[in-house]
Amino acid sequence: MAASRFLEACARRPVDATPVWFMRQAGRYMAEYRALRKRYSILELCERPELAAEVTLQPVRRFGVDAAILFADILLPARPLGLKLDFVRGEGPALSPPIRARRDVERLRDFDPRQGLPYVLEAVRIVRRELAATSGGRVALIGFAGAPFTLASYLVEGGSSGHYFETKRMMYQDPKTWRALMEKLSRVTARYLEAQIEAGAQAVQLFDSWVGALSAADYRRFVLPYSRYVLESLRACKVPTIHFGTGTSGFLEEFREAGGDVIGVDWRIPLGRAWKKIGYGRAIQGNLDPVVLACGSGSELRDAVRAVLKEAAGRAGHIFNLGHGILPQTPVENVEAVVGWVRKYGAA
Amino acid sequence: MAASRFLEACARRPVDATPVWFMRQAGRYMAEYRALRKRYSILELCERPELAAEVTLQPVRRFGVDAAILFADILLPARPLGLKLDFVRGEGPALSPPIRARRDVERLRDFDPRQGLPYVLEAVRIVRRELAATSGGRVALIGFAGAPFTLASYLVEGGSSGHYFETKRMMYQDPKTWRALMEKLSRVTARYLEAQIEAGAQAVQLFDSWVGALSAADYRRFVLPYSRYVLESLRACKVPTIHFGTGTSGFLEEFREAGGDVIGVDWRIPLGRAWKKIGYGRAIQGNLDPVVLACGSGSELRDAVRAVLKEAAGRAGHIFNLGHGILPQTPVENVEAVVGWVRKYGAA
Repeated sequence: MAASRFLEACARRPVDATPVWFMRQAGRYMAEYRALRKRYSILELCERPELAAEVTLQPVRRFGVDAAILFADILLPARPLGLKLDFVRGEGPALSPPIRARRDVERLRDFDPRQGLPYVLEAVRIVRRELAATSGGRVALIGFAGAPFTLASYLVEGGSSGHYFETKRMMYQDPKTWRALMEKLSRVTARYLEAQIEAGAQAVQLFDSWVGALSAADYRRFVLPYSRYVLESLRACKVPTIHFGTGTSGFLEEFREAGGDVIGVDWRIPLGRAWKKIGYGRAIQGNLDPVVLACGSGSELRDAVRAVLKEAAGRAGHIFNLGHGILPQTPVENVEAVVGWVRKYGAA
Repeated sequence: MAASRFLEACARRPVDATPVWFMRQAGRYMAEYRALRKRYSILELCERPELAAEVTLQPVRRFGVDAAILFADILLPARPLGLKLDFVRGEGPALSPPIRARRDVERLRDFDPRQGLPYVLEAVRIVRRELAATSGGRVALIGFAGAPFTLASYLVEGGSSGHYFETKRMMYQDPKTWRALMEKLSRVTARYLEAQIEAGAQAVQLFDSWVGALSAADYRRFVLPYSRYVLESLRACKVPTIHFGTGTSGFLEEFREAGGDVIGVDWRIPLGRAWKKIGYGRAIQGNLDPVVLACGSGSELRDAVRAVLKEAAGRAGHIFNLGHGILPQTPVENVEAVVGWVRKYGAA
């Protein structure tokens, strides 16, 4: 069985070339995905393991990236928790009823992922089998879940948010309810990721996408203990954990403290500066601006890729990625080109 | 004439108590302002100097803050530049036509603020006169303008934006047009601020509110020279300059390099950590989370204020403020309470 560059880099072992994958690499920018979306809703794609597996594998076939990330919506756990999840065209996810009071938290069901999200686990099994057959272990499978804060923010706001007003209101005005919510979500998230690993995920990424809404002090008080609980729970599973957030440049010290073998950072901070702050005892993932991937032209885009690689050069443990997910407007040719440049300029 | 705590702190001289003002301190959270807004549109409030002056002075009377900031919309310069500016209820500003190509940039009028924005300058004169009469110089008047990048992003996008796709597309695909646009906006912005100072502004703040959308490398290439041009142009005016941005934690080093006697930072980074990165040769302004001001309860809010003060303690040159503007939902009582706590806990 071939070694996985991605898994080697997670362990900070030297590799022949910097591994590369992209957050949201399966998605609307690909014609193959859009063709399926004409026939199925997002939730149908998630709920049918063969379809979720197919979507997960599309970018692996197309671009030859070093890892597949499970196609699943970050809010799927909201349904077995007891909420209604809809996708409103042009407005993003809508969750109801929003979680605002202690009794709302108590009503959330502390579900077992084998019962609550069996289709996700089945998709993991299919993808893992396929990757073993087609790549002989060269392409790794990454499972994922939203981190407790990011999941909580969706549950409390009832969807996406600009200011996270209701979320912060709960933190400040009703900290006991906040803590009860975060405890429940931490347990559920840890079990969900454990189950994905058991089903075949070879690494997992904890997405704290919106944690950059917080100050360092609030991160430490209201979030860090719960993300740490999740990441520490996974230690026994012996697979690498990636801890990703955006807007974390001001509190990478605290973010790292919550755990993660690999820290994923956004594009705002130079990767070398981020790695220095995080410490070289962790691997690092990132951090090309997804808008640059979407709108960069030939040599400008190439130079941006080289600049990211240069920031991390001379040290084992860099995984090339974006600073956030691929945008729907992204030309497929740009993604292809970036993979090529990472292969070329990231070669040892 | 009494000394201004605010101006003393800008110069990093010791003061009897940390000065305090709030970005967007004149606004919808105040009943006095809402009463005027029932009768006048935002643009009418800006265009009538007596009304703009009245709105500017409302928070000074109500809270006894140490500085007044001119009430004006950041996009007013778009009109003499030649664009149409509207405020669409619930959607924010709309500018037309958007600036996308070289010929659009060429068509922008390189206006003289005395001709193009005389009403703003008249409001400055009225407020300055009023403050001299009522506070004897204790309360300073701050003028302001949007920084070239933030202004450019509105012009290119045609309004607010999530990803700044068109703005970054111009940077990457048509850098000559981008540079021509930024050069024009830098000149206009420098002249606009110079005219405000001539009319009586005792300090000016350059708002680069949305610059946190960029990577450090793109900030350095596409923005820094233009912000620096504006800030250096103002040196001859001998008034302090405040350089403010949000999302800058990852590139405060570069942001500082552009200039500013005072650097304004958002709430994401601990103020002490930010100051250390910026260097103690500059004063610092910030950085309570505006959402915490809006939704914090008594002792929690007090502790958050004390934590900000503590981060900056033991050194001259801290101006207490939020990390961004006051939100419309903010209870007036919270603002009152924060001013009291800054007076109490920020006393020398």
